[in-house]
Amino acid sequence: MEIDVVISAKYIEEEKLRGKAAVIIDTLRATSTITTALNNGAKEVIPVLTIEEAVAIRKNIGTGLLGGERKGLKIDGFDFSNSPQDYKKEMVEGKIIIFTTTNGTRAIRGAKQADEILIGSVVNGKSVSGELIKLNKDVVIINAGTYDEFSIDDFLTAGYIIDMISEKKELELTDIAKTAQFMYKERRDFSFAENAAHYKRMIEIKQFEDLKYCFKKDIISVVPKYKDGIIKL
Amino acid sequence: MEIDVVISAKYIEEEKLRGKAAVIIDTLRATSTITTALNNGAKEVIPVLTIEEAVAIRKNIGTGLLGGERKGLKIDGFDFSNSPQDYKKEMVEGKIIIFTTTNGTRAIRGAKQADEILIGSVVNGKSVSGELIKLNKDVVIINAGTYDEFSIDDFLTAGYIIDMISEKKELELTDIAKTAQFMYKERRDFSFAENAAHYKRMIEIKQFEDLKYCFKKDIISVVPKYKDGIIKL
Repeated sequence: MEIDVVISAKYIEEEKLRGKAAVIIDTLRATSTITTALNNGAKEVIPVLTIEEAVAIRKNIGTGLLGGERKGLKIDGFDFSNSPQDYKKEMVEGKIIIFTTTNGTRAIRGAKQADEILIGSVVNGKSVSGELIKLNKDVVIINAGTYDEFSIDDFLTAGYIIDMISEKKELELTDIAKTAQFMYKERRDFSFAENAAHYKRMIEIKQFEDLKYCFKKDIISVVPKYKDGIIKL
Repeated sequence: MEIDVVISAKYIEEEKLRGKAAVIIDTLRATSTITTALNNGAKEVIPVLTIEEAVAIRKNIGTGLLGGERKGLKIDGFDFSNSPQDYKKEMVEGKIIIFTTTNGTRAIRGAKQADEILIGSVVNGKSVSGELIKLNKDVVIINAGTYDEFSIDDFLTAGYIIDMISEKKELELTDIAKTAQFMYKERRDFSFAENAAHYKRMIEIKQFEDLKYCFKKDIISVVPKYKDGIIKL
């Protein structure tokens, strides 16, 4: 089993995804939030690139809640922000969520050539690693990154997932995948993520609760998958 | 002073280099070898992309020695391989070297929008960091990578240079630059480079001496610069 890591959505090379399992990681916060919403009973999440697309889809299907962010903040007229705290069971159960974020959505939609597309984060990291072992395909972990750039938080999450798989399976890792594993393994926590520019942005917009939540290991045991434009369990 | 790192020649974005100092790193072995050749008295090094271009330039200027590699091995009809051991004083003093390698040459030529283009490696790392402090411009460290992919050896070298500058200067580092510094700083040596696919390739082709040489810190105090198609001191 080979594992590679792509450090930003902008570096996705579609032909390298064919026949493989892709894992999309946007720890702060899109993939943590999508996983939380589905775990809390949302029927499905439809990731879209633009605000206009989100509004048009809701009009089209005649139902659905709008969620997402621009510059980390809630979008005017939307039901939810990009905070996982917004997607409580009583708010989302049985509902369709139409979701747009700056980095994560693009990474998810860019991975469509892969055989399987999993939504990964720290909160469901262990389950993602278990699912990858079960699938037994070569893996490309796609870090959404922040505004097209490498983001420490996503890279540590990739390292965390690789490290868990490596305990159960012989792996062939690319140089970048080895580096991700090393970064996580040196401390076996996410404290280095405090150096991320994205982390600092979250402090600026006072998302202290989310910063705690998004680095909690394995509090969710579902693995959302993206297929034909829709994310569901 | 800001420092960013580009993890492979294929990810160079020319517009991000304007007004900055670029450092090209191809630790195994192009930039180690170019630095060695110039330190040993070579007049200049002309980096070219193809074997045909190298042969044509020699014909054109009527002099020069041909050096470089394909798949790590010496090119048929060339005077030197890509091993720094080939470029001894008695062989290169006063000579023009026309040089082509798989990864390094492309990175050097791709950086031409930068204000200054420095040739960096472990062997002259300290001098490179000194020169960057003197220039006092924002820096982009360009790792050549290996066959277009991230390479651990180049990344550690970037981290080494960043770490030395950080001891003397307040720095603003991007997430990837912080990660490079962390990787180096955890051990303050290059032992993790043994995990690089490129390192393993060097073992396969039995370049044991070069592996020792290319990770010797600061045995050379010159900083080659690339300008108008030519690398010299």
